[in-house]
This record gives sequence, C-alpha cells and structure tokens, in this order.
Amino acid sequence: ADVKKIAVIAGDGIGPEVVAEALKVLKKTEELFGYKFETEHGLFGGIAIDEKGTPLPQETLDICKRADAVLLGAVGGPKWDNNSKELRPETGLLGIRKALGLFSNIRPANVFDCLKEASTLKPEVLEGTDLIVVRELTGGIYFGEKFRREGAGGEEAVDTCVYNVTEIERIVRQAFEIARTRRKKLASVDKANVLETSRLWREVVNRIAPDYPDVELEHVLVDNCAMQLLRRPSSFDVIVTENMFGDILSDEAAMLTGSIGMLQSASLGEGSFGLYEPVHGSAPDIAGQGISNPIATILSVALMFRLTFDYKEAAQSIEDAVESVLNAGHRTGDIAVDKSKAIGTVAMGDLIIAAM
Amino acid sequence: ADVKKIAVIAGDGIGPEVVAEALKVLKKTEELFGYKFETEHGLFGGIAIDEKGTPLPQETLDICKRADAVLLGAVGGPKWDNNSKELRPETGLLGIRKALGLFSNIRPANVFDCLKEASTLKPEVLEGTDLIVVRELTGGIYFGEKFRREGAGGEEAVDTCVYNVTEIERIVRQAFEIARTRRKKLASVDKANVLETSRLWREVVNRIAPDYPDVELEHVLVDNCAMQLLRRPSSFDVIVTENMFGDILSDEAAMLTGSIGMLQSASLGEGSFGLYEPVHGSAPDIAGQGISNPIATILSVALMFRLTFDYKEAAQSIEDAVESVLNAGHRTGDIAVDKSKAIGTVAMGDLIIAAM
Ligand SMILES: CC(C)[C@H](C(=O)O)[C@@H](O)C(=O)O
Ligand SMILES: CC(C)[C@H](C(=O)O)[C@@H](O)C(=O)O
Repeated sequence: ADVKKIAVIAGDGIGPEVVAEALKVLKKTEELFGYKFETEHGLFGGIAIDEKGTPLPQETLDICKRADAVLLGAVGGPKWDNNSKELRPETGLLGIRKALGLFSNIRPANVFDCLKEASTLKPEVLEGTDLIVVRELTGGIYFGEKFRREGAGGEEAVDTCVYNVTEIERIVRQAFEIARTRRKKLASVDKANVLETSRLWREVVNRIAPDYPDVELEHVLVDNCAMQLLRRPSSFDVIVTENMFGDILSDEAAMLTGSIGMLQSASLGEGSFGLYEPVHGSAPDIAGQGISNPIATILSVALMFRLTFDYKEAAQSIEDAVESVLNAGHRTGDIAVDKSKAIGTVAMGDLIIAAM
Repeated sequence: ADVKKIAVIAGDGIGPEVVAEALKVLKKTEELFGYKFETEHGLFGGIAIDEKGTPLPQETLDICKRADAVLLGAVGGPKWDNNSKELRPETGLLGIRKALGLFSNIRPANVFDCLKEASTLKPEVLEGTDLIVVRELTGGIYFGEKFRREGAGGEEAVDTCVYNVTEIERIVRQAFEIARTRRKKLASVDKANVLETSRLWREVVNRIAPDYPDVELEHVLVDNCAMQLLRRPSSFDVIVTENMFGDILSDEAAMLTGSIGMLQSASLGEGSFGLYEPVHGSAPDIAGQGISNPIATILSVALMFRLTFDYKEAAQSIEDAVESVLNAGHRTGDIAVDKSKAIGTVAMGDLIIAAM
C-alpha cells in the first residue's frame, strides 16, 4: 500500500501522553483498513528549547517538510513563560505555521450531545450548535512589523497589522468551499467600521461572493460576533476571520460547546498537507498523571484522514468509536460529572480502539 | 443651587426615545433633591450627517466642551452604513472620544437577579457575576495610522497599533483605583505572547502593581479571557484592557449577563467630565414604536451622578427605583418572558419616576 508519512510532534505537558493514544488509533487503522503509515518524531516547543536551545529546531522542520501531515500534541508551560521571545514555545508555533505555509486554521466547535451538560450555556441554547471557525493563520498583526521607539508619551510599542488581497482571497475561498459542504452559511467577521485591513477584507469577500451563489453570506462585526456566539450559537455554520479575531472567537466558540477537551483542529496550506492538533493546551498541571483526555488528539487523526488523506471510512470509524465510548458513559476526569468514576488516558484510548 | 450643565445627544434610532425618559428622571431628581441642571441638545451621528453633512458638527463638540457631562442615546443605522468613512456615524463616535480626551470606557456587566433567566448561561454559572470592563478608548489600532499600498500580493491594507507608557499607565491606574473600591481583583488582559504593544502593556502593569498591594492582579491572555468569561464569569471583578480587546470582551461580558438592554457605560477623561450612554445600540428596527427599553439610559444618568457629580444619594434612588420596578414584574419587550405583558418605553420611564 501507499505509505503515508506523518511527522509526530508530541511537545510538552500532556502532549506526549495524548499523542501516544492517537498513535495507537493510527496503528489500529493500519490493521483494519490496510493503510501504511511511517512516523517520524520531532522535538518542538519547550522540550526543544531545553534540548536544542530553540523551540523549532531545523531538524524538526525538515521532518515536517518531508511528511504528508503533522500530528502535534501541545506545547508550552510555565517553565518557559518568562523566557525571552526567541526562547518561548509560542515563537516556535508561529514559526512552524509560517515555515510550512499553514495559512488556514480550521476549528470545528460542535457539541457532543452526551456532553451538553458540561457547557455553561443552557442546553436549549446550545441545541444544534455545529460550527467551524476558519481563521487566517499567517498574516495580520501576528506577523507584521513590531518595534519599540521613544515618543512624546515615553517609550512606545508598535504592532502592524497587514493584509493583502491574495492572503484574504485564499482563506475566504477556502471558507466558502467548506460552507458548500455543510449548511451553506458563511459569516465573515471583521471590524470594517474601524480598520482598514477589515475594509479590504470585506471588499475581497464581496468580490468573491458571486462565485458562491449557493452560500448565504453575512458580514458580522467582531464585537457583535462575540455576542452572537453566546446568543445564537446554533445559527452559525462557517465563520471566517483574520488571525487575531480568529484567535479570540475560536476560543470563545470552543468554550461554549463545553467540550474543549474534545475538539480537534487542522492548520492547512496549499494542497493536502496539514498540521493536526487538539485545541486544548499542554495542561502542565495534570501532565504525567495519566488522567488527560486523549479524545481531541484522536479526533485530530480522524480530521487528518478526512482532509489530508481522504480516508473517509477510517475517519468515520474513529469518530463513531469515540461517540459510542462516550455514549456508553465512559469519561476522563475533565468531562466526568462524577469524578470518582473517571477513567485514565490509556483506558480511554483502549476503549476507543476496541470500539473501532 | 450649583447649576450643572449636561450636553444631551439623542442621536439615531431609539436614541431620542430612551433619552427622553432619562431626561424625565433627571428632572425628577431636581424636584426630589434640589439639584439644578441645564441641558443643551446637540446633533450627532446619522442625524447630524443628514442635517449638517458631518457626524460630529463643531457646534455639538462645543456644546459638549462647555458641559460638565454628556448624555448620549445611540447612533447609527443602516441608512448610513454604506457611506464613505467621513460620513459614517462611527467616525463621529471615534472623533468625539478623541476630541474630548475620553481615554477610558467603563462598562459594568452585572446581572439583575430578576432577569437571570434572560441570559443564555446557566443561572448557577452566572450567580454572583458583577464585573467591570475598563477599556482604553483613545489609543491602539483604532487610532494608529491606516493606509493602502501596492505590494507583491496585490493591494494591501495596513493598520497600526501603537501604545505609549503614558497611555497605558493612566488607564491601568484608573482600573486599579476602581478595583480598590470593589472586590480588589484586577485582571489585565493582553496578548503578550505575540504583540509588542501587549508586552509593553504588561511591563507597565507590573511596574505599577506594587502601588496597589491590596489589589490582587492576574494577567490573562485575550483568547483565554474570552473563554474564562464563559467558564467563570463570577470570578472576575475588574478587567482592564486595550481598545480593540476591550471592544470585543466588553460586548461578550455584556451579553452573558443577559441584560444588555440594562447596561450603562461611562467614558471618562482626566477630571470629573464624562460621557454616559447605554451599551445597547440604536436598534433602528424598533425605533419610533415606543417599545424600547429606557433602563440602560436611565442607569447612565445614575452613573453620571456617581462618577461626575458625586450625587450618591440620587444615584442610589434611581438604581433602587429601577430594581423595584423590575421586582414588581414590569418589563419592556426585550426582557419580557411573556411578551404580551410587555410595557412601552414611556410607561417604563413613568414607573421608575414614580418609584423614586
Ligand atoms: C500560543 C499562541 C501564540 C497561539 C495563537 O495565538 O495563535 C494560540 O493561542 C493558538 O490559538 O494557537
Ligand atoms: C461603533 C464602533 C466604532 C464602536 C467601537 O468599536 O468602539 C462600538 O462598537 C463601541 O464599542 O462603542
């Protein structure tokens, strides 16, 4: 069979333990579906700072570049929080996005019916919530020029937010395409009443929209979107927005589902290459105790199967297995109502594999 | 008695009708407490565009400048949404903030016990939520240089986010002072892992913090704050942040209380001068029908009494009157569970005055 290369970056905190479960799932799909995967492991984030003196070693980048997809655990932790910029895990994260051309971050926020009670929103408000945030990932204020200077009001700091037509067009087209495969609704989020980049964003969206007459488009101001996500989450289908707004809104959207330990994400560039990772962080407080929830990472493998490899059947089998294990009442500590009945990371992974 | 001058800007949509009720309350306090107010009305926003060709006529600015405080209704509406930048109501809003030096926007988000059911959050999560967002209002990406240029990726747009030490220090000190009068907790929100302006922000906060040893300080990243507001709203007391983040987070915070038609706000500069307005918008869809909720504007008068005039007793009497009318079960349409029993704008105003 066609061998697929997967770069595996376990990272920090609970990263290694959740990735281990995802790799068991990967292996199981080889048995069940006859796939062949070759994995290569790379250091990244805090552990790379400790062992290699940089959050993103060239070697790790090379491993990613020769792979068809990347599976990432999580990076960061208090140990590196006060490091200088070049020696911080986040700098590696921004670096890898840029180096691999991953201009699009896709974060589904759907509600697991059996976990609805975990949300702080009322169940009737959450009913039917199933949205995707498509966040631009390599532009905007994250990557614009940054500097300090002396001014009349003392030292001043400057960040620059830049977007060009090409950057906006590719992410917006991708969002329209995704909307087409779903409920055919796209909300483009900007702050066009204040920002020039947002005005250009909106112009590009309006220019492209006629190519997708089957998709219903609405423009939503970012402040209003932060409200509407709370008021009518189920009315959103696909939300597309720029980097900084996407950072904020995708976290808000993830939290309202109440299932943050369950959410997978993809970062995509041109072509089928993609980096897949759980939405949750490295949770250093519970790392190494074997109690973390591996489901988001396991579902990231399913998303990789869907978006990079087009292995639909296997993706479905993973997703169904997760659902059946949850429906059978199994929970890790983060999503357990009765914490005393919570199972561990490995047990959850084993149950999912058994259910596949 | 000492005559206080209030500039009154009714604005667009429901602005005039909610301001009319607030003025009735103002008048009532003259009777009850012997105050003397002199009001001067100015055109602003859409109506000023229509009648004077600019959203912020010099005359209106002059009226504000010779006043002790400004009472603003709401501005904007679809009629002006496609105008060029100079002819849009928002441009007037940004202009008046800058011209009057209103560097601080204060938005309390508290939950009215009797309105808890109006929130989309579970009542037990909301329990005890009473927070204030202190938003920097005249700096950051709102006011930095903005332009278009040609680049390799086609036309590009640029926004510049700038903050200097003086701007950060004055707003942060104000937030610390406010926290001191409350539960003594301050959350400073930034994106210090990515933005240079945020790193400067955090440095200034940390430098100032020792002057307020009685206030417990936490730094929260903006994406995390968007989540925590949903997860543990009652744990926040005062949140201080820069302009763009404040725009998003204050709207999210307002929405989670479920009482958006009830929330007042203040924009302050140096000294006691302030501009007071409801958090809600001009609601053009219901304007002129006499069904809008005047409570946020009435409570804005109470806030003006507290912050600009130090008329504590009268402020309390307004706030108590609002609460007693709500407790008696009276509701405007926006907050009524049984819409058929909703009362109108004028009736609500009358009830509040009667209860004072
Ligand atoms: C760690 C940080 C730089 C990063 C971001 O803001 O992009 C994170 O919040 C994310 O959303 O992946
Ligand atoms: C209308 C707009 C310019 C304004 C802002 O973003 O400041 C509004 O959203 C607000 O919060 O007062």
